[in-house]
Amino acid sequence: MEIRLDAKTDFAGYEVGYDIPALPGMDETDIQTPCLILDLDALERNIRKMGAYVKAHDMRHRSHGKMHKSVDVQKLQERLGGAAGVCCQKVAEAEVFARGGISDILVSNEVRDPVKIDRLARLPKYGARITVCLDDVLNVDDLSAAARKHGTILECLVEIDCGGNRCGVKTTEDAIQIARAIDRAPGLKFTGIQAYQGAMQHLESYEERKAALDSAIVHVKAVVAALEAAGLKPETVTGGGTGSYTFESHSGVFNELQCGSYAFMDADYGRIRDKDGNRIDRGEWENALFVLTSVMSHAKPDLAVCDAGLKVLSVDSGLPVVYGRDDVTYVNASDEHGVIEDKSGVLRVNEKLKLVPGHCDPTCNLHDWYAGVRNGKVELVWPVSARGKSY
Amino acid sequence: MEIRLDAKTDFAGYEVGYDIPALPGMDETDIQTPCLILDLDALERNIRKMGAYVKAHDMRHRSHGKMHKSVDVQKLQERLGGAAGVCCQKVAEAEVFARGGISDILVSNEVRDPVKIDRLARLPKYGARITVCLDDVLNVDDLSAAARKHGTILECLVEIDCGGNRCGVKTTEDAIQIARAIDRAPGLKFTGIQAYQGAMQHLESYEERKAALDSAIVHVKAVVAALEAAGLKPETVTGGGTGSYTFESHSGVFNELQCGSYAFMDADYGRIRDKDGNRIDRGEWENALFVLTSVMSHAKPDLAVCDAGLKVLSVDSGLPVVYGRDDVTYVNASDEHGVIEDKSGVLRVNEKLKLVPGHCDPTCNLHDWYAGVRNGKVELVWPVSARGKSY
Repeated sequence: MEIRLDAKTDFAGYEVGYDIPALPGMDETDIQTPCLILDLDALERNIRKMGAYVKAHDMRHRSHGKMHKSVDVQKLQERLGGAAGVCCQKVAEAEVFARGGISDILVSNEVRDPVKIDRLARLPKYGARITVCLDDVLNVDDLSAAARKHGTILECLVEIDCGGNRCGVKTTEDAIQIARAIDRAPGLKFTGIQAYQGAMQHLESYEERKAALDSAIVHVKAVVAALEAAGLKPETVTGGGTGSYTFESHSGVFNELQCGSYAFMDADYGRIRDKDGNRIDRGEWENALFVLTSVMSHAKPDLAVCDAGLKVLSVDSGLPVVYGRDDVTYVNASDEHGVIEDKSGVLRVNEKLKLVPGHCDPTCNLHDWYAGVRNGKVELVWPVSARGKSY
Repeated sequence: MEIRLDAKTDFAGYEVGYDIPALPGMDETDIQTPCLILDLDALERNIRKMGAYVKAHDMRHRSHGKMHKSVDVQKLQERLGGAAGVCCQKVAEAEVFARGGISDILVSNEVRDPVKIDRLARLPKYGARITVCLDDVLNVDDLSAAARKHGTILECLVEIDCGGNRCGVKTTEDAIQIARAIDRAPGLKFTGIQAYQGAMQHLESYEERKAALDSAIVHVKAVVAALEAAGLKPETVTGGGTGSYTFESHSGVFNELQCGSYAFMDADYGRIRDKDGNRIDRGEWENALFVLTSVMSHAKPDLAVCDAGLKVLSVDSGLPVVYGRDDVTYVNASDEHGVIEDKSGVLRVNEKLKLVPGHCDPTCNLHDWYAGVRNGKVELVWPVSARGKSY
């Protein structure tokens, strides 16, 4: 072609499709797919419900920002659900939340790299209370030196491995040794214990989850008692997820919960059962997060292909589920395609479907935007502020 | 803290760690992890080797940009490997490549949404030749109307399903009907056939892959013969991936290859065998892509935890492999952690490891940057230009 446009003057500003999949005010049906959408009514109900639960059980809720990676969702959790701050897993996420104005940030993870330690120790200057986890006494001096360098305070939790078999110390002796070193280190404050049992969150049976948590609670209580005996009473004992929070909140030892997925839900959490044997996405929490997708090929009568594959859906915890439809099934994901079994040939090209992702956290991290919808309209478009902030 | 900095004046410009994991000139050991790294020597050898192969076999190579999503890698493939253009799967990717100056772009996929069709039809104005695939005669009028509206030409391939069971028509009659409709439609040009057998690429056995491709080639030849008989000779017959390109290039019917993964390689492709029974990552292609990770916890003697989990590595095709090490094994991925079995306790906190991802395409799509390294130094930092461009 003879006309060669200047890219700057052609795609100026935000253009739906190229830069952004949706704009506020448009019809939900006009969203460019695939796109993450939030059902704002369901999201607000989930957030208010957790807020009421936490208040009724005299707990604090520190919502897990590693799930949504969004300053805006976090602010909604603080405003509607009374969340007492955010937790996240990476220094780069903490930087995003601090810059976004979140004032109480826990990095529920170890920070060992010298550059990352320096970045972390600088963050209290943004006006945020910063807390970090340790599972190695050798980490204490590095954190202390960085806090002194920047003239800041880093609050510190000792991470206890209560069955997750990932980070965290196993023995009470190790926990006391680290707590004591923190307590003596200038620039650091010993604040308490991090005890998150991640491996049990997704066990489908309530009894199996309860057994895993009962054992974790016994362990945490023993550590807390030993710390108190050593004159190091923990001010905070924090942990708990969407699959376990009822156990921690009745434990008598935890005082802070870290639930994240409750706000959005996903197909994998949906399958776990409450104490009455009901799926937790049938009453306890509502699906608020979906990947909106379009059918883009139906060349075979019983097989439709949609535009949502591995690059917009994480399949680590199973394939997505087509929401509200029992006549069609998402059966295979490739890079950019989802194959949908459509035995009765009911789907049409360009028809839109809402997919409930298998695992919400890594799915959100694939996207740049949330389109918040209500009554068929896009009400807001929020950036996934900490997407890709893994370093 | 009393000091509250202005974010604009503090983190100004690119800061390593916050905005970007590496800068040109730094030591490889100073890269903030996790980070995608490219071994530039290996990458250049892979690209030159494919270029020589294609030339020797009188084929064209259209490198698959859905894998790398990088304008810079594509330009390297065109410069060093003689690649004849790019293919990609999404209109949003095509927009990135067109704006980046790539002049020959195939969307190797169907485009059905009216807004996406309009965006596609505008792209030739950027000076790029644009080609798209069809598997439904009902798509012809929409594409034609959009091309006429923008005064452009869209070249069109009929997509044949040769065993992948995804998009594409099954019968010769359907292929001819669509080709004829394209040929008659103003603004469109019938250019040929898209025939990519994706489902067989990762079969480990050479004989199984050959059998799948032999059957596909018989099918494609029949379609081509029927089109020629109908006066619609295909100028381009395109397909082939890293697991099959030797078959297409000896078929006598394909004239264009679409290999993508050969340039970077991954653990899943590495496991497939050549005709002598050797793994293809032991001689045919070199691992050029790694996720650099750091050990960030080693609280249990036989278990290390690294900082690379599901948000920096796609595990749809298996876990990553620790490169060059047979003493430690990556055994479990959670959102932000990788658990590494370290039976002899050889790893140290902050030690860096190179992971070969299970599947390169969705892994690259998780990252914002490639750090290109040579002789222990970061030589370049390239954006993953089309990351997240799925709509």
